[in-house]
Amino acid sequence: MTTIRTAWTVSVGDELLTGESLDTHGRTIAGRLAAMGVGVVGHAVVGDDRRALAARIRTALAEADLLIVTGGLGPTLDDITREALADAIETPWEEDPAGVEHVERWFRSTGREMPPGNRRQAFRPRGSRLLHNAQGTAPGILGTAGDAAYVALPGPPREMQPMLEDALAVLLPDARPRPTRLVRAFGIGESTAAARIESLMERTRELPVATTVSDSIVTARIRGTSAADETAVEALAEEVRRAWSPYAFDDGATGLAAVVGTRCESLGLAVATAESCTGGLLGGELTAVPGSSGWYRGGVVAYENRRKIEDLDVPARLVESFGAVSAEVAGAMADGVRTRTGAELGISTTGVAGPGGGTEEKPVGTVWIGVSDDRGTVTRCFRFSGDRALIRRRTVLAAMQIVRFRLDDVEAPLLWEYSA
Amino acid sequence: MTTIRTAWTVSVGDELLTGESLDTHGRTIAGRLAAMGVGVVGHAVVGDDRRALAARIRTALAEADLLIVTGGLGPTLDDITREALADAIETPWEEDPAGVEHVERWFRSTGREMPPGNRRQAFRPRGSRLLHNAQGTAPGILGTAGDAAYVALPGPPREMQPMLEDALAVLLPDARPRPTRLVRAFGIGESTAAARIESLMERTRELPVATTVSDSIVTARIRGTSAADETAVEALAEEVRRAWSPYAFDDGATGLAAVVGTRCESLGLAVATAESCTGGLLGGELTAVPGSSGWYRGGVVAYENRRKIEDLDVPARLVESFGAVSAEVAGAMADGVRTRTGAELGISTTGVAGPGGGTEEKPVGTVWIGVSDDRGTVTRCFRFSGDRALIRRRTVLAAMQIVRFRLDDVEAPLLWEYSA
Repeated sequence: MTTIRTAWTVSVGDELLTGESLDTHGRTIAGRLAAMGVGVVGHAVVGDDRRALAARIRTALAEADLLIVTGGLGPTLDDITREALADAIETPWEEDPAGVEHVERWFRSTGREMPPGNRRQAFRPRGSRLLHNAQGTAPGILGTAGDAAYVALPGPPREMQPMLEDALAVLLPDARPRPTRLVRAFGIGESTAAARIESLMERTRELPVATTVSDSIVTARIRGTSAADETAVEALAEEVRRAWSPYAFDDGATGLAAVVGTRCESLGLAVATAESCTGGLLGGELTAVPGSSGWYRGGVVAYENRRKIEDLDVPARLVESFGAVSAEVAGAMADGVRTRTGAELGISTTGVAGPGGGTEEKPVGTVWIGVSDDRGTVTRCFRFSGDRALIRRRTVLAAMQIVRFRLDDVEAPLLWEYSA
Repeated sequence: MTTIRTAWTVSVGDELLTGESLDTHGRTIAGRLAAMGVGVVGHAVVGDDRRALAARIRTALAEADLLIVTGGLGPTLDDITREALADAIETPWEEDPAGVEHVERWFRSTGREMPPGNRRQAFRPRGSRLLHNAQGTAPGILGTAGDAAYVALPGPPREMQPMLEDALAVLLPDARPRPTRLVRAFGIGESTAAARIESLMERTRELPVATTVSDSIVTARIRGTSAADETAVEALAEEVRRAWSPYAFDDGATGLAAVVGTRCESLGLAVATAESCTGGLLGGELTAVPGSSGWYRGGVVAYENRRKIEDLDVPARLVESFGAVSAEVAGAMADGVRTRTGAELGISTTGVAGPGGGTEEKPVGTVWIGVSDDRGTVTRCFRFSGDRALIRRRTVLAAMQIVRFRLDDVEAPLLWEYSA
């Protein structure tokens, strides 16, 4: 096998050719390969069509040092990746005893009998090896055909991603990752963020900084061309962090909830939530962090007004006078949950997530966020753009960023913040 | 030009092969074409490489009735779609006077002079036509090569999408959408689901049913080849629904939360949630449904044990004797939130989401779900596989499915259900 410098990737599945599902594996794998110095020369999406896939595999193996196919390794008849691979590389197939055992064990561990169809999942071309799947039944396959290597991985991202790492460890044992830094920020617009680092983004620079926006978070990416760029890449990342302060919150791996959690834990503070428009999503986001029981107590989903009054001790007259979506009610909710739970920090959300319920004074997207601690209670108003899901998501992110600012004693306006 | 039944799509751009940008045009265009009865037979991502793109275009025009290329129509030297198209179809090129005028006018409207490079954007193959771009400088191109039609569209989504509609209106003036049905089910494994409809999935059938799994939900897809298949497609969908009963819950558009909500609303029942391991995600999922205030009251995120005791009236001795992850506590949580809120239905979750906290008796993935209503309290135990996020997501889905079963008076075991 030659040194791997180029790769082809293929995603398999009818659902990717009908507009039902979005193929994200192409990008995921390309990003990982790029980090290890392997250039993707082509990516294709093929339906559950054995002949078309076999043809694509053949071309790919001729054009690149490595082929990575994802999807089509399931137990059903429309899962045709194994067969197409067999057709393309013209190698006899055999059942892998350890593979059969894996699939059987998988079913036993979930208390079920292995359906006969799943036995197919343990087939692999002679001379190849199976890749262990810790998250599902379908083993992956790793082998060589002529000068090229091929890898087949199951489609579910949770199964695919760790197996991709295993395969890369085998195929590129000496690859030294190109140094890469991500800087992520919330509460600043992409154009403002870009303007703050304009000179770093010029394409003529040796290591230009690139920005993208996803899930309302702005990301700056700095990638070196070789391991020797480590110091330069870190220095650039530090420049971006400074330019994006106080909005920059992590290096792309942690997430805002974990950043808030780590900070709370180190300060010995516990958090409680009082949610109306987010309906539990803020608590859900905070408890997505492993070990969150160390700093998160719980809270109240006060969706109907009676819950705000009965479960959070919000005075009924506040709801009547100012409405549920108001600074007064947001503040009382945050205070109420803090008092009830004995947490040091109470966080509240109340707003109009839409599509209905908007008024001229409080249109859809109007959200109040409250934070209560021993220094007092702050409330901030937003007018988020987007649909119901986006408004609720932005509320959760803004609430966490406000807590972060509060803990770090920072005052800065956030994107979409609104003062009447 | 023949009637258009099949299409190839190609997305152009180095940034799509390095992991920097996610290619979403493939899905967007496939969805639009599928709705108009055109099947996408292949999709490829090609870098800014004139030769590779020309080769791909040639293959695509030979294999399908229509080729849609997106990206690479900008003014810079790495925009090579026009040149690659010229190489592939071997037709002389000419400057389009109206196109030059459009580009010049675009620059005038932004108060700038047209850079000389942008003049290239008005080139098109002889016999083809330019497609107007209302949002940017790059006109699209629509033409024919032999029996096939081709369309080139600029990459930015807000430019591409309206131009795609214009192109489809020209190419498919009489298109009638192909009938399509999706049937979605939760709580049944993919192999079991497939076994129940095995004969419907045979690839030799005129309208084979295909299945996929995503977000732990199994989906069956039935798609007609022409509008005349409407009745046959619906009959097949009905067969799948019956075979997957009681696990099938919707037609792919509604979602389990909305199904539960509609059912509760029609029965005049209100729901309240008491969440431990899901931390608010169940409330968040239920309130993702617009109008959920009609049937959802709110609830308690009882993350620490004190919250279960103080806010849900769970007897402390139950927590001490049986542990927080137990039938007894799950039942008391569901009862407690129902009593506190006056809702007709209380739903609870308590479990070990991991990665820590597992024991031999209650390993990571052990979850109890409780439902309380005027007929009593039921609790069900699960051993979910997957990581923390997946265990919590599956808990939310299982809780909603259990409520649905309860409302419909159905008894059926769910995937991952565990009896000690």
